[in-house]
Amino acid sequence: MLTRVKSAVANFMGGMMAGSSNSEPLRGSDLPLKYPYTRPEFLGLSPDEIECSADHIARPILILKETKRLPWATGYAEVINAGKSHLNEDQACCEVVVVVRRRPSDGGNSTPKRPPTTRRRSSLPNGEGLGLRENADVEPGLTFHYWGLFDGHAGSGAAVVASKLLHHHIIEHLQEVLDVLRNPALLAPIIQGEEPTNYHLTPTTHRGITRAASLRGAAGAPGSPSHPPPTRFFTEKKIHHESMVIGAMENAFKEMDAQIERDKAVFNVSGGCTALCALFLLGKLYVGNAGDSRAIIIRGGEVIPMSTEFTPESERQRLQFLAYMQPHLLGGEFTHLEFPRRVQRKEVGKRMLYRDFTMSGWAYKTIEDDDLKFPLIYGEGKKARVLATIGVTRGLGDHELKVHDSNIYIKPFLSCCPEVKVYPLTQYEHGVDDVLVMGTDGLWDVLSNQEVAEAVTGFLANCGPDDQRRYTMAAQDLVMRARGVLKDRGWRIANERLGSGDDISVYIIPLSMMTMFLDVQS
Amino acid sequence: MLTRVKSAVANFMGGMMAGSSNSEPLRGSDLPLKYPYTRPEFLGLSPDEIECSADHIARPILILKETKRLPWATGYAEVINAGKSHLNEDQACCEVVVVVRRRPSDGGNSTPKRPPTTRRRSSLPNGEGLGLRENADVEPGLTFHYWGLFDGHAGSGAAVVASKLLHHHIIEHLQEVLDVLRNPALLAPIIQGEEPTNYHLTPTTHRGITRAASLRGAAGAPGSPSHPPPTRFFTEKKIHHESMVIGAMENAFKEMDAQIERDKAVFNVSGGCTALCALFLLGKLYVGNAGDSRAIIIRGGEVIPMSTEFTPESERQRLQFLAYMQPHLLGGEFTHLEFPRRVQRKEVGKRMLYRDFTMSGWAYKTIEDDDLKFPLIYGEGKKARVLATIGVTRGLGDHELKVHDSNIYIKPFLSCCPEVKVYPLTQYEHGVDDVLVMGTDGLWDVLSNQEVAEAVTGFLANCGPDDQRRYTMAAQDLVMRARGVLKDRGWRIANERLGSGDDISVYIIPLSMMTMFLDVQS
Repeated sequence: MLTRVKSAVANFMGGMMAGSSNSEPLRGSDLPLKYPYTRPEFLGLSPDEIECSADHIARPILILKETKRLPWATGYAEVINAGKSHLNEDQACCEVVVVVRRRPSDGGNSTPKRPPTTRRRSSLPNGEGLGLRENADVEPGLTFHYWGLFDGHAGSGAAVVASKLLHHHIIEHLQEVLDVLRNPALLAPIIQGEEPTNYHLTPTTHRGITRAASLRGAAGAPGSPSHPPPTRFFTEKKIHHESMVIGAMENAFKEMDAQIERDKAVFNVSGGCTALCALFLLGKLYVGNAGDSRAIIIRGGEVIPMSTEFTPESERQRLQFLAYMQPHLLGGEFTHLEFPRRVQRKEVGKRMLYRDFTMSGWAYKTIEDDDLKFPLIYGEGKKARVLATIGVTRGLGDHELKVHDSNIYIKPFLSCCPEVKVYPLTQYEHGVDDVLVMGTDGLWDVLSNQEVAEAVTGFLANCGPDDQRRYTMAAQDLVMRARGVLKDRGWRIANERLGSGDDISVYIIPLSMMTMFLDVQS
Repeated sequence: MLTRVKSAVANFMGGMMAGSSNSEPLRGSDLPLKYPYTRPEFLGLSPDEIECSADHIARPILILKETKRLPWATGYAEVINAGKSHLNEDQACCEVVVVVRRRPSDGGNSTPKRPPTTRRRSSLPNGEGLGLRENADVEPGLTFHYWGLFDGHAGSGAAVVASKLLHHHIIEHLQEVLDVLRNPALLAPIIQGEEPTNYHLTPTTHRGITRAASLRGAAGAPGSPSHPPPTRFFTEKKIHHESMVIGAMENAFKEMDAQIERDKAVFNVSGGCTALCALFLLGKLYVGNAGDSRAIIIRGGEVIPMSTEFTPESERQRLQFLAYMQPHLLGGEFTHLEFPRRVQRKEVGKRMLYRDFTMSGWAYKTIEDDDLKFPLIYGEGKKARVLATIGVTRGLGDHELKVHDSNIYIKPFLSCCPEVKVYPLTQYEHGVDDVLVMGTDGLWDVLSNQEVAEAVTGFLANCGPDDQRRYTMAAQDLVMRARGVLKDRGWRIANERLGSGDDISVYIIPLSMMTMFLDVQS
């Protein structure tokens, strides 16, 4: 994301960026790339076009040439940064997938060994093949639509790998619950292979303090084989299908991250990335987010947030709690306490404001020597950093990232776990101007939710409802509004505000088409 | 809260409950009581009346005899449980306090050693003394109004102590920021003693990855005294007064809990308690909550939640994360994973649904021997328990609480830290029927927010606006609606639903009077 990483990026761009100076050796940079640097497949760019897109002066906005490349005329547009990294470190992916039952030979293991690319699925770049399966003799599959955005930092490697593979991990995990999902009338069976059914709670004691006499004798636990099952504790929770899709997405992010770590042993997979993805499955829209990209729904001109950003500020208490519990992770150089600014040596013994992990307010404490250490979280807003290094606290990759000139790893403080929000699409009516907007932080840094909603709603109102290019043009308009135009004093947007100098990538996905897709299917 | 604790409670009731059977020795039960068991001071009950109130068959509803005992005709009503403990383990406290500057001899220490009872303050049981100080020659103080509710479990000791002392700890912490709070036009000074001022951020780098070259040279940190302060990192945060009141409340809860732990060495302070308190200070209403009591504002008949409940379900991920980080806290007997029900030995090798601390959804895992351990969090809704023992996850006390027949302490999983919500009272107009309702879980277990709002709004509409007893009568009505009437099949409320068999305590606090108080002051 920043100038520091230019040299690292140049290393794996091969000839394209040859001649870059300031080469700083990176661990793993001598290894081969897992995937060459590229732009999203659905853009269909030639190598020449990819090279032209990386013009930091002109900053051309790239859009889809053929709207049919993405389902339901989804709009997409992107632009490269204004020079903070040689390459556009954003990546994107869009797929229509039919999940079919895993073949018997696949076994029931939770960590499939077979490379995901050999899985039986249909992943078509255009919307015409919806619902088709590669092989007509298999049982009916489960179709889902997938859109992913990945914002890389300290190199493009992790973002490229995640854009190629995250949806495969989602497929793996959905396969495990496929039978359950195909029978939406029933609750999920707690044990796989059982007939799904409704479970009822047996009466237990009132909340408060409970005698746990049956604890060690319970349910055939070790050490007490002779005890009968304690029916008092024998309750079963109702698990709904939605929770199993959420669980599949959560575990897919975790495995994607684990795979990047494994891949780094044999490939050059540089840096890390945020990940924001939307899944349309069985009439519901699931948005999973790990990082500081953002998704909103615009319905009737109103904004419905579909993600929250994970930053040093929003995750302060989680990070401080972890550091408090595992102080060795701070390498003796940082303090888990937060102060409003760096403490000066001359202030030892005076009283200064601070916050601990339990606090959302501030209080005074007497400054001690330990408080002179650098704070775990430092800076405000977009400038806030964890361990003085990184401004985003969830995502994939970054396994090798350390505090500059130290042996303190950042990764333990980063989480690869997404927050998944669910939108019950079928519960609402949607017009042609109702959309899901997904954008990397380059968009949201300069435009508020409300500004985006007004821009999109205003733009679409001026397009014919059947115009196949309306969402692509709206995406282009949005990227233009966030990038601005180059003037004497840099990139400027409306009201002479500074435009975004960051990579910007935007999807605009029509919700009315999802409803129509369901109507056609049923 | 439950039958198990009856015997413990009887131990410190002295003669009142003499003759109780089933006496189970409790650590500390031979020590003297710090405070004798009592009902809230403002009820002004005689010992005989206290004994009569503990009738589990009649369950008389206690109300204020004189409305002037509480500020602004605050309504209060309570009722004992239906037999789950000998005593009413709820406690309540209401005070009007004038905080004055600590005398120079008090020093600037953050943990005042002087017993809080000697502090210079005015704590009047009636509303007539508002703003008065004990000594007219001191500088102007800061008045705040305070209402507290404490729901005890496994004994009344902690609830009694907290009801007597929590506000004193709040006073201590407000004294530390008194100078700042008295000058609302200015931001808080970061260093105590400095002139408050506006600080501005110095420009730093863009968010993302940052070079932390200046890390160890920064701000005169140890090991690099010769480095100049790195202005790039030298930013200061703006801290508002509201945050300092929140911080004072947060730290007051922490010190109240620490004091209970210390007191247990010399006194019999049994059990633990939840704590819910409201503070009206400088035109804002602060509600701090640690436990499963609840506060709501009813404004124009609409509900504004002012607290969230902390239970094994709502705090699942925090608890699982802690157990994952510090597995020794589980004593080898529990697993931090959540399952929909107990795992059976015969299910080892099969696949079962589970949730880890990173997940809000569910997924399948292959059952291993370790999964036969009892789950850290077990049961659903009101029956959910941490370590098979307790159904509430924040509060004060419980330091000695262990899993039955084991050496596993519960306390590390409990938090004494409140969540503090702020209501900017002066930003709204309030009518005489707009109120803050605070209630222990006995109320909310059987009545929803909406039902409470309808009951209170309906009741107050039928009272004269100047009737001094309107809030007390409304509180009585609410407790009656939650307790119900004793029928053949137990306590029944509207629509033949089960009434609450728990202790129930309710405050109804008029918001319009707070606005009037401000008008009078200014």
